[in-house]
Amino acid sequence: METSYSLTNIDETEKFCNDNGIEFSCVRHPPVPTVETMIEEVKFPDKEVVLAKNLFLKDKKKKTLYLLVAKHDTVVDFKALAKFLKTGSSNIRGGDSDKLEEILKVKGGSINLFCILNDNEKKVQLLVDKSLYGQEWLGIHPMQNDATFAISGADMEKVITLSNHEPQVINFSELVVLSDTPKYKQQKKEKKPKKEKKAKDEDLHELGITISREDDFSLWYSQVITKSEMIEYYDVSGCYILRPWSYGIWERVQRFLDGLFKQSGVENSYFPIFVTEKALTKEEDHLEGFAPEVAWVTKSGKTDMKEPIAIRPTSETIMYPAFAKWVQSHRDLPILLNQWTNIVRWEFKHPTPFIRTREFLWQEGHTAHATKDEATKFVYEILECYAKTYEEMYSVPVIRGIKSRGETFAGADFTSTVELFVPSNGRGIQGATSHYLGQNFSKMFDLWFENEDKKKDFAHQTSWGFTTRSIGAMIMIHGDNKGLVLPPKVAQVQVVIVPITNKDNHDEILESADKVFATLKGSGIRVKIDDRKNYKPGWKFNHWEVKGVPIRLEIGKKDIENSEVRVVRRFDGKKFQLSTEGISQSLLDELDKIQAGMYDKAVKERDDRMKNAATWDDFMSELNQRNLILTPWCDQESCEDNVKERSKEESKQAENAGEEVLTGSAKTLCKPISQPELAEGTKCFACDSNATSTALWGRSY
Amino acid sequence: METSYSLTNIDETEKFCNDNGIEFSCVRHPPVPTVETMIEEVKFPDKEVVLAKNLFLKDKKKKTLYLLVAKHDTVVDFKALAKFLKTGSSNIRGGDSDKLEEILKVKGGSINLFCILNDNEKKVQLLVDKSLYGQEWLGIHPMQNDATFAISGADMEKVITLSNHEPQVINFSELVVLSDTPKYKQQKKEKKPKKEKKAKDEDLHELGITISREDDFSLWYSQVITKSEMIEYYDVSGCYILRPWSYGIWERVQRFLDGLFKQSGVENSYFPIFVTEKALTKEEDHLEGFAPEVAWVTKSGKTDMKEPIAIRPTSETIMYPAFAKWVQSHRDLPILLNQWTNIVRWEFKHPTPFIRTREFLWQEGHTAHATKDEATKFVYEILECYAKTYEEMYSVPVIRGIKSRGETFAGADFTSTVELFVPSNGRGIQGATSHYLGQNFSKMFDLWFENEDKKKDFAHQTSWGFTTRSIGAMIMIHGDNKGLVLPPKVAQVQVVIVPITNKDNHDEILESADKVFATLKGSGIRVKIDDRKNYKPGWKFNHWEVKGVPIRLEIGKKDIENSEVRVVRRFDGKKFQLSTEGISQSLLDELDKIQAGMYDKAVKERDDRMKNAATWDDFMSELNQRNLILTPWCDQESCEDNVKERSKEESKQAENAGEEVLTGSAKTLCKPISQPELAEGTKCFACDSNATSTALWGRSY
Repeated sequence: METSYSLTNIDETEKFCNDNGIEFSCVRHPPVPTVETMIEEVKFPDKEVVLAKNLFLKDKKKKTLYLLVAKHDTVVDFKALAKFLKTGSSNIRGGDSDKLEEILKVKGGSINLFCILNDNEKKVQLLVDKSLYGQEWLGIHPMQNDATFAISGADMEKVITLSNHEPQVINFSELVVLSDTPKYKQQKKEKKPKKEKKAKDEDLHELGITISREDDFSLWYSQVITKSEMIEYYDVSGCYILRPWSYGIWERVQRFLDGLFKQSGVENSYFPIFVTEKALTKEEDHLEGFAPEVAWVTKSGKTDMKEPIAIRPTSETIMYPAFAKWVQSHRDLPILLNQWTNIVRWEFKHPTPFIRTREFLWQEGHTAHATKDEATKFVYEILECYAKTYEEMYSVPVIRGIKSRGETFAGADFTSTVELFVPSNGRGIQGATSHYLGQNFSKMFDLWFENEDKKKDFAHQTSWGFTTRSIGAMIMIHGDNKGLVLPPKVAQVQVVIVPITNKDNHDEILESADKVFATLKGSGIRVKIDDRKNYKPGWKFNHWEVKGVPIRLEIGKKDIENSEVRVVRRFDGKKFQLSTEGISQSLLDELDKIQAGMYDKAVKERDDRMKNAATWDDFMSELNQRNLILTPWCDQESCEDNVKERSKEESKQAENAGEEVLTGSAKTLCKPISQPELAEGTKCFACDSNATSTALWGRSY
Repeated sequence: METSYSLTNIDETEKFCNDNGIEFSCVRHPPVPTVETMIEEVKFPDKEVVLAKNLFLKDKKKKTLYLLVAKHDTVVDFKALAKFLKTGSSNIRGGDSDKLEEILKVKGGSINLFCILNDNEKKVQLLVDKSLYGQEWLGIHPMQNDATFAISGADMEKVITLSNHEPQVINFSELVVLSDTPKYKQQKKEKKPKKEKKAKDEDLHELGITISREDDFSLWYSQVITKSEMIEYYDVSGCYILRPWSYGIWERVQRFLDGLFKQSGVENSYFPIFVTEKALTKEEDHLEGFAPEVAWVTKSGKTDMKEPIAIRPTSETIMYPAFAKWVQSHRDLPILLNQWTNIVRWEFKHPTPFIRTREFLWQEGHTAHATKDEATKFVYEILECYAKTYEEMYSVPVIRGIKSRGETFAGADFTSTVELFVPSNGRGIQGATSHYLGQNFSKMFDLWFENEDKKKDFAHQTSWGFTTRSIGAMIMIHGDNKGLVLPPKVAQVQVVIVPITNKDNHDEILESADKVFATLKGSGIRVKIDDRKNYKPGWKFNHWEVKGVPIRLEIGKKDIENSEVRVVRRFDGKKFQLSTEGISQSLLDELDKIQAGMYDKAVKERDDRMKNAATWDDFMSELNQRNLILTPWCDQESCEDNVKERSKEESKQAENAGEEVLTGSAKTLCKPISQPELAEGTKCFACDSNATSTALWGRSY
């Protein structure tokens, strides 16, 4: 006879675990009804725990119920899931809460894997994400969402076995792809190739983005980066494949920024990826900032190394011992070096492609100067390079500022920054930073020189970095509900030509289109012609819209008769006719207009959302409306800590009260360099002290 | 009372170790009287052992005797050492062999650290390389050079303590730098800056290369790469810093090669540096080739990872699972991807900057095609890109060929290659390879597609790589006894202007020089003016010669009067006057001539040393004269193995007989693509079989 269970709270869950030899560690936390809050609140001090997203679903037609347990960042595409479950494409829905409470004995915000133990009559089918198997630690709520148990992947399987449910194991990364190319992939699964077929209208829909930014920003983002072929997911957590569509952007940005650096006298070099423990641990503040995220190599082949070697999380401690060797006199200064490399930071926060990844690409510049003046001047010279890159290449406006003490780079005297704003989710995002390190590192690494007065002096240093995160920021800021929107200067393809043919005029139209293609290519426009026969124009429109190509040219029978082409602009959807006479110049002008238009649009969207607040209540009200807020501020670290704590608390209360607000704590993005005048005696918006400057606040990535 | 020792052979050394609790492992090998032979012969199967170079020295004046023990690849600069020991700069000499045998009880080819135990009367001072301390395993001969004991760094210290000698510990990397800039560095050591002084004539000599290629090729190479500021040594073994002088070359080569790839339709991308054990171990041959060299990450922060993650030694196993996702139909092919990345191969052979390093930079291209024909065509298309890069950028001629079975890339059907020749040491060097992988990986990684006949077929693949090794090859091939010689197309600085001034005409001459500088810069020449006041022209000539700048322009009083400049070409030393009228075009032409002249010179030097041999005796005779040899060959793997073995053995016998020959085994560099006709019935030069092709043989890096 099968055992029947009834688990309704943490105590009963604990007993169940103890009775069945399931080891667990427990953390308590505020209630986390959503995946977002869970990610933010649930942290185990000593282990990397994979959190789960839990959904109670039903098949509208067949009335089947499902408990779906998947990795927290899984993109669950209901249409694809419906296909997998072999039901109609729009039949999968959220399950009813009364059934949930009746059968699984849990409320909406607390669904978890243990629930399935309560389904003693097997009314619910269990769907489990393949990627949860074999995990070291899984986080599962013990029937209530103010606590999380970490159990092993093996014990997860044990729970399932004890529940007497036969789970359906789903590879969600396949499911996502499935929605793009259902026929082929199914063939692949069955290992029996069948006849290829032309794309039908139903595929059209699946090709595009099926979620709006407003409904689920992170799902929208996932769809955009995968369906546009920027990113391929990879089987090491936090690592992603940059496909040519995104890497091409990086190449163009690299070339632009590298040119600016070279104008400033910076030279490129390459320093090793490995650093000894001894060098890495030399500057204490710096170490403290990076130590928990360092990846260590301890074995080569089958041999243990005597001393572990770290992979660079940044290269101050790798470069400065060499600087010290090279410098004797002030004549050996400045040293202005840069490198374009990969970097590894083994973070435990949940990863987001481009934005937070365990390996990423960047440039890191490191300089040494004879004087503080020269060094700080250089800090801002580089900051301008970063601002220029965002503004001119990405069409993204920036706010230049100085980081608060609490947000300053580990080991720096001050950090300057360019800050960006994502209108659709109201979050700030740090664009790039340029640090003045003072003499902190030069003293540790013995980087001194004989100055003009023949006295010994330590070098003044700067370091600065710009990463592939910038691509993610650009996607979030410009992307829309049809997909990617690319600024012409970075786009891999600036103009795509779609010939509108039918079988009577196919060759004739293609000939004209080829001519236009050759003309544009000859004038340096990055142009592509989509002359694939097995796709219809509508499918192609959709395809290139998802991929964000700035201009689509349609060439049909009538266009040719009139010596015209039809132009469709991606970023604002504007459509118009252009004469083929002088088409290259017209389109070059058009691309410039788009580049500028996208920038202006982003400025307007940001400025509309940048509010002033002089009091706490105004501050919270603007924050909950997903705005950035400028406030008079006392510039004290303890005050910022309080604001973080209090804003988090109050927004949670607002959410619990049913308001639609963004949760999480607000922090300073920066103290803008361009400061408005503060009336004498102005108080800090958050505490009793006098305000000393104006700070920009928001929720931030 | 102090113990006195007398160790003369392996048995007595073993007893000493056992008596004193010193743990050791022992390997036996042929006698290795030189560092070169030691590196080649002494291998521990299970550990990474640092080998030592041991020198018995004396101070000519003071009669002091020294035993110097340093890491095998240490550059021991006697002048710098003399300075360190506070004796006259040319007073350090090799010690006399009778003293060596009398006091240390060992013969010349067997000197080792244990010897010092025999010096019971403390007649010899002990000098120890700082970098030997803290090593996991050190290899030391047990008083005879046909065996090596591996003992720990801690036990090395124990041996020294037991010997009752107070060692002087030397940081040799500092010593090398010291010889460049003695005054400043000494100040640095004493931490008391003294007055800076102008470089004197004696510094002049130390600035330059002090060893000839013919006398000690590897010491010459070390001096060239450090004194030219291409390389800075680093404290992780096998990793080196690429300074702007070398990285700039890489940038230019990258841009050139990347342009060629793009013309062939290749797109750039970026795949993660990490690979799971599961993916890495999928293709067995491939794994077998790389497994012993893989670096494993097992910890992040203080947390052990559940599964170790490998750092890419190459990316076949990282990329092809993604390829498999992307390909369904023949219409999705070809995939032509490339990435520019770092690579880690934890080799235990002794490292050489650029040539064999544990981390290096490269591009790796990976493609998938529908047919074998298309794939193999692409293999050669890429090989031509590599040949072009060597020929046109590096002015280095190549021999295109196919690798023998034994030298083929692990997992490939065949490997095509471009092979280079270093005239001054008679070694071949592999330039770059392009592989046809067949369907070996596509079958393992499920990379199949539906072909035009609607049948399932596996993709045909290629992979190909070009590395920073190419810079090392260029240095070895073009460098001369004055230092680096750079081809204009890759040189960071193409023309250096040295104004020849005295205090009367300083400003006037500088003004003219600046004008020439501005003119050249304006026409795109990479030009530098060396107007430093604290160095004399002679010093500057030397400085820029060591750095290999293709053209030096001298501008003095007389030149200005005649509206001329003096031109000195680095590669052949040719000197002549040029009119300042049309100077840019004259110099651009001159740079082209130098680029071509360097290529022609290298072709001639190689062709003079490429010999034919039809018999074994002829083959060995040419090999021992450091030539490359073309032979009729049977193309059998077992035959090549025999040749390797036999050539090694015979050259060692020749060396033992007192002949000056290069030792080590010969192998095939390639079977050249352009094959001479073989007369029917021609026999293999090395065995009884019939020859099937002509192979190129040599000793190789």
